[in-house]
Amino acid sequence: MPDPIGDTGALLMRRFDELGAISEEPDKLVRAYGMQSLRRAQDLVSVWMRDAGMTVERDAIGNLTGRYEADFAVTHPKTVVFGGHLDTVRDAGKYDGTLGVLSGIAAVAHLQAAGTWLPFAVEVVAFADEESYRFPTMYLGSGYWTGNFDPVLLEGLDETGISLAQGMRDFGCNPDNACLPVMPRRDILAFVELHIEQGPVLEAEDLPAGIVSSIAGASKFLVTVEGQAGHAGTVPMHLRRDALVGASECVLAINEIATAGADGGLVATVGWQVTMPGAKNVIPGRVEFSIDLRHPSDTARLAAVDHLKTTLHEIGQRRGLGIDIVDVPGADATPMDAGLMDTWRDVFRESGLQPRELASGAGHDAVMVAKIAPVSMLFLRCRGGLSHHPGESIRADDAALGVTLLSRFLDRLATRGITCA
Amino acid sequence: MPDPIGDTGALLMRRFDELGAISEEPDKLVRAYGMQSLRRAQDLVSVWMRDAGMTVERDAIGNLTGRYEADFAVTHPKTVVFGGHLDTVRDAGKYDGTLGVLSGIAAVAHLQAAGTWLPFAVEVVAFADEESYRFPTMYLGSGYWTGNFDPVLLEGLDETGISLAQGMRDFGCNPDNACLPVMPRRDILAFVELHIEQGPVLEAEDLPAGIVSSIAGASKFLVTVEGQAGHAGTVPMHLRRDALVGASECVLAINEIATAGADGGLVATVGWQVTMPGAKNVIPGRVEFSIDLRHPSDTARLAAVDHLKTTLHEIGQRRGLGIDIVDVPGADATPMDAGLMDTWRDVFRESGLQPRELASGAGHDAVMVAKIAPVSMLFLRCRGGLSHHPGESIRADDAALGVTLLSRFLDRLATRGITCA
Repeated sequence: MPDPIGDTGALLMRRFDELGAISEEPDKLVRAYGMQSLRRAQDLVSVWMRDAGMTVERDAIGNLTGRYEADFAVTHPKTVVFGGHLDTVRDAGKYDGTLGVLSGIAAVAHLQAAGTWLPFAVEVVAFADEESYRFPTMYLGSGYWTGNFDPVLLEGLDETGISLAQGMRDFGCNPDNACLPVMPRRDILAFVELHIEQGPVLEAEDLPAGIVSSIAGASKFLVTVEGQAGHAGTVPMHLRRDALVGASECVLAINEIATAGADGGLVATVGWQVTMPGAKNVIPGRVEFSIDLRHPSDTARLAAVDHLKTTLHEIGQRRGLGIDIVDVPGADATPMDAGLMDTWRDVFRESGLQPRELASGAGHDAVMVAKIAPVSMLFLRCRGGLSHHPGESIRADDAALGVTLLSRFLDRLATRGITCA
Repeated sequence: MPDPIGDTGALLMRRFDELGAISEEPDKLVRAYGMQSLRRAQDLVSVWMRDAGMTVERDAIGNLTGRYEADFAVTHPKTVVFGGHLDTVRDAGKYDGTLGVLSGIAAVAHLQAAGTWLPFAVEVVAFADEESYRFPTMYLGSGYWTGNFDPVLLEGLDETGISLAQGMRDFGCNPDNACLPVMPRRDILAFVELHIEQGPVLEAEDLPAGIVSSIAGASKFLVTVEGQAGHAGTVPMHLRRDALVGASECVLAINEIATAGADGGLVATVGWQVTMPGAKNVIPGRVEFSIDLRHPSDTARLAAVDHLKTTLHEIGQRRGLGIDIVDVPGADATPMDAGLMDTWRDVFRESGLQPRELASGAGHDAVMVAKIAPVSMLFLRCRGGLSHHPGESIRADDAALGVTLLSRFLDRLATRGITCA
């Protein structure tokens, strides 16, 4: 496909840099919900949306949407939505979330440049809060957008004691309006988010892009191992009940269980561990650690959880240690829409790409959007699998390829007349 | 042996309670070097020393000594020293250190009550700082007492910024005097400390007391395991280099090595461990932990250290993790004097006790005193092996037995004329 508006890859990379410079702090990227930096980023993106021929709206919670209308001959047209988000964690990279927004705008810009109107509208939505970095929320932006906003969230506080309600006002939004009921949309033909992989698989396999099959469900736990503290010099080995030795066996067992199920997409991580009392000359009496276990299939995930819990209790019993496992709210898996995945496989083959499927271990706004519409996601390879880090990096030609894939997706939907489906 | 001064056990238990009530804080026992509470404790102990017929002195650093003179017919008499300490850690028990002082005084009181003068003097020394709880020192009291005081220590600061020099002045001592050279004493026939075991061995074997064979040497290390941080959801198991999984294998290996050498008295402990970055949804990129390894034999300890280092490096290599092991100053073992141990074995047998020998995993003032004199130690069983804890507990009849053992030890030295040795 010729590029009617010049070098898409170079343009995108300039825009990533421009957006990446808009931050609440001078030396690192942070742009969380309600911050003025996020408003400035939205202002800049609004300009790019309008340049691409879209009308721009901001909803009651601050989600920014650009809309490229359908062919005027189509009555009650449906809508294809390209999603992404402009909010970030602290000391973030420039591509996480932003890629979905900027690639969507670029795909629409190609339509405008070619004078093409499709039998459906195309929207690009930049969700206002995907990272939940500042306030105690979960998919605040896409939650509101899909009619899943709970007014109790308004009372949540950030680290400095500012409420979400106040953050919303600072962001130019009216919390009272956010509490009005939202009618779930029925016009969405397809939701697509192009996102960086945030993992090393595509790079390791030398593939520029992949098709997401499912957003993995997650089970989360806090485990306490209770032993007996004692003097590191005076308690002989056979009389010890060392909580850290028990916890270490648990960590290895968790890792082995996950490795055994890795082919199916199982991952498990102990990311946080605290040893008490934590003195160098005292036998640990108590260790607490977290477990984060994810799998694209809920059945397989729950089976792994059962296996894991049994194994941990066995370790505790054998070592004379107390093992307490507390469930922390997790999430079920979100499978991608089968029909859309078929379309994506066709688009990949047509583009000479291997239609590599992979699960998303991280959560995305598609989890919420799936409640009201068919959803799909693509992953673009990123350097070293690095994300949520200033070293986050993608290639310009991969970015351009991403836009090409979105364009071909629109083309395929348009020519097959799926608007009538 | 009849008890000429009434019920020794009951008297001792009352004195432990009285001393245990003298603290810098109202609700927990803490009595560290330089504190007024330690002075008040010394004042009370001085009274008890004088009541037992001793003259009392306080040296330049604040060690408190009571002396019961030898038979006046003996010229240049040697001295048997019963040692202990009155300083404590914070939230301490009442017996650690205090037992050595009060049992020594009680043994002397028996001499006085019986009108017995021995062919050697008997001293009871209460060292001023064994715990090093407040200032950055190591055996400050017995170090000074044996001529091993380094004036540079005077600049050391406690947590609140008070120097040791100031703490010394607050304690009624003159730092300038403390810097004058101390002639190492040559008159010490035997040094004995009766101490609570601080471990569970005697209790587990239903023995009231044991003979210390050696104060274990300690090797200490700080280990860093370097892996690669990453997203807990997006990095598949086979591409991970999880520092905590590696560290956990190290902890288990250390525990196995120590367990294999436990019959010889080897103990090894990972008491402190920190997982970084420590977020529940991030694969640990770096873990740091401590190792504390002790053995009564230096040769065996150094062999275990070699084995341990090799094993840890193998784990790192196999898992693709960096392993860095930094040596932290430890200590060599202090074997107890063979001749004194023989005497103690005789005393135990004479008392119908099994002469159970055990190594001390914790350090004691005997480590310093061994530089100038033959040293020995006895352990008294304590409940649950608990120490450095308000739950520290001993039995009154065990305490009385301890005094009987000290008396029989004096008797044996006196009748065998070892003063001439």
